[in-house]
Amino acid sequence: MKKTLLKKYAELIVRSGVALKKGQSAFILSELEIEDFTAMVVEECYRAGAKKVIVYWNSPKVRKITMKKSKKEDLASFTPMDEALMKWRCDELPCLISLTSSDPDGMKGIDMGKVAYVSRARYKAFHSYIESSENKYQWCIAGVPGAAWAKKVFPDLKKKQAIEKLWEAILYTSRADDGNGIANWEKHDADLKARCQYLNSLRLKSLHYESKNGTNLTVGLIPGVIFLGGGEENLKGHYYQPNIPSEECFTSPMKGEAEGIVYSTKPLSYNGVLIKNFWVKFHEGKAIDVHAEEGEEALRSILTMDEGSAYLGECALVPFDSPINNTGLLFYNTLFDENAACHLALGRGFTNLYPNYEQYSEDEIHSFGINQSMSHVDFMIGSEDLNITGTTEDGREIAIFRNGNWAF
Amino acid sequence: MKKTLLKKYAELIVRSGVALKKGQSAFILSELEIEDFTAMVVEECYRAGAKKVIVYWNSPKVRKITMKKSKKEDLASFTPMDEALMKWRCDELPCLISLTSSDPDGMKGIDMGKVAYVSRARYKAFHSYIESSENKYQWCIAGVPGAAWAKKVFPDLKKKQAIEKLWEAILYTSRADDGNGIANWEKHDADLKARCQYLNSLRLKSLHYESKNGTNLTVGLIPGVIFLGGGEENLKGHYYQPNIPSEECFTSPMKGEAEGIVYSTKPLSYNGVLIKNFWVKFHEGKAIDVHAEEGEEALRSILTMDEGSAYLGECALVPFDSPINNTGLLFYNTLFDENAACHLALGRGFTNLYPNYEQYSEDEIHSFGINQSMSHVDFMIGSEDLNITGTTEDGREIAIFRNGNWAF
Repeated sequence: MKKTLLKKYAELIVRSGVALKKGQSAFILSELEIEDFTAMVVEECYRAGAKKVIVYWNSPKVRKITMKKSKKEDLASFTPMDEALMKWRCDELPCLISLTSSDPDGMKGIDMGKVAYVSRARYKAFHSYIESSENKYQWCIAGVPGAAWAKKVFPDLKKKQAIEKLWEAILYTSRADDGNGIANWEKHDADLKARCQYLNSLRLKSLHYESKNGTNLTVGLIPGVIFLGGGEENLKGHYYQPNIPSEECFTSPMKGEAEGIVYSTKPLSYNGVLIKNFWVKFHEGKAIDVHAEEGEEALRSILTMDEGSAYLGECALVPFDSPINNTGLLFYNTLFDENAACHLALGRGFTNLYPNYEQYSEDEIHSFGINQSMSHVDFMIGSEDLNITGTTEDGREIAIFRNGNWAF
Repeated sequence: MKKTLLKKYAELIVRSGVALKKGQSAFILSELEIEDFTAMVVEECYRAGAKKVIVYWNSPKVRKITMKKSKKEDLASFTPMDEALMKWRCDELPCLISLTSSDPDGMKGIDMGKVAYVSRARYKAFHSYIESSENKYQWCIAGVPGAAWAKKVFPDLKKKQAIEKLWEAILYTSRADDGNGIANWEKHDADLKARCQYLNSLRLKSLHYESKNGTNLTVGLIPGVIFLGGGEENLKGHYYQPNIPSEECFTSPMKGEAEGIVYSTKPLSYNGVLIKNFWVKFHEGKAIDVHAEEGEEALRSILTMDEGSAYLGECALVPFDSPINNTGLLFYNTLFDENAACHLALGRGFTNLYPNYEQYSEDEIHSFGINQSMSHVDFMIGSEDLNITGTTEDGREIAIFRNGNWAF
């Protein structure tokens, strides 16, 4: 890919994505094989006036060996460096840039129970840090092609070509293929904002999903909780774009109010394991049964992470005619695939969707119906014939989606 | 390079190099481009019973950008994570594996004054941690070919071939090319120990260096301070091999007693800058003048790091007929080049060479004549015609080296 276009993409991530403030530090999660692009992002951070830029490099190879060979107690125990990092992030509030490039099959063969045990223990140890910094810093996830990921998306191409093709797809779906990402995002963000404004004006109390694939699900909504899309403002008043790309208008539903069954329409890559062709059955808000043609163990492990991980945390509306779906590609990566079609998420809801959320404690907001969990796992349910009908607080039925796309 | 040989080399580093103890943790310094071999070392650490294996990845690209773009005050300031790491290393005493693979020219163009400022500030901040863990853990430095390093050593070869050739040279000089590294090192270590025993029996009070290249230098030694070579025992009673390869018998000279001039016989790669064809003039132990045909700024920056950085910390004896010299290669890497020929080091001496050093404070040992400094920079002075003559405490002259090789 042309270096000038990549530099512009790095610029989009730093200037619009996290919108780094002069004098702020940046914390970057990246992977070894995408060193070149990561270096461009680091350089752009300094150009934007970053104080410190700290990169944490993940080696999928070393991670896999560690997960295999280490005792789960040793994996779960944390070092003083882990704790210092959490504390530094709370005290300094650096923006977080997460560059996703992983092999969707990279963790195949690893005991999912062990992975879940470690996640749980670490979440427990660091929960207070996570809560205390929530909604206080800007963050952004963006995609960068790794070789194994590119080969998964384009199995018939050679490595180098596959990477080039995945770059093309990433830049196209991220509205960065013409080098004008920052301006394109300003326009796109205004569109998403207008749709959310309309949705919020309806005062919906539930959504009903129906498709010929078998989906038949009703989800309750929480009075006052908003639909959000595109950019967000954190508690420091900084506006940022958490996901590049992003096509969704999303909300957090009422915990305990989900009835029916929903069928996945795309595979889900979870902790490096692919889960394919699955359904989830809900009763009184809880996923009480699941089935997957592939990866069912990983799917079940999602539900048992903690008390809230079997309840819904998100309903996201994405037209079937999205740029991502129009590529005709399956990305095997949630950031992209979730923006291809309507999706739901199991697990944690978004407390910042509650009106004046900063005036309430976390516990209060959860008591209003926003689900609490350490995990948050999106899965795709959008299809060509998906209809979504909203019911308003005063009982009117409103067409939200017809045949997979916006009805308004 | 064959994977089986590389696995054996990883085994040598973990089992003989740091001799990791069951239940001990390991701290690995590595570089992004040598992920595959690093993963082998990580796996071997777990096989040896490591509790935690923590890898700190260096990206030369990001480091260079950071050094260029960051203010020196921001670079010098440390994060809570830096301090937590120092504290963890003091508390847990993990063994340290340092895999060296860097481009010898990788830091070309970076302001050496800035680099020195940052090193000084960090050393000051962490000095107490460094002192408190000294001689308490096992450590080992070993070489792994990076692409730029390989191309520097074999400029006429293509990248892949150059890496293969450098692997051959590293495994040959590390006595690991036949897959029997561990047994080979046991034998080699016994040889070095016998030479040191003889040197220590002589009770030398000075060494005189002379060569046709102009070298004419006398260095005073400290009564009782020993020559050491090969493996070392730390204060926990763990025996380990700090350098793979290692051909030297070395001691720390008397601070203040060096007179004359010494000419370098190989280039010195310092902080990613090559220093070529240089001499150093000593008076009353101090380097009072230097000249280099290339890299003189970097050479001068070594002398001004702190009060002790212009004094000698090490005299190392290595025969000109060493395996490394016999390859005919210049490695542009101190670990290898210092084991090709006799060398001296400017800066810190080795306190553990003083008899019963654990019974004295650091300050006391320095007052006995072992130099103190934050830096320690080796440079090569061995040549084909180098003669070294020792003078004993009772005035006898003993031939130590004749024509570049051991005289005994």
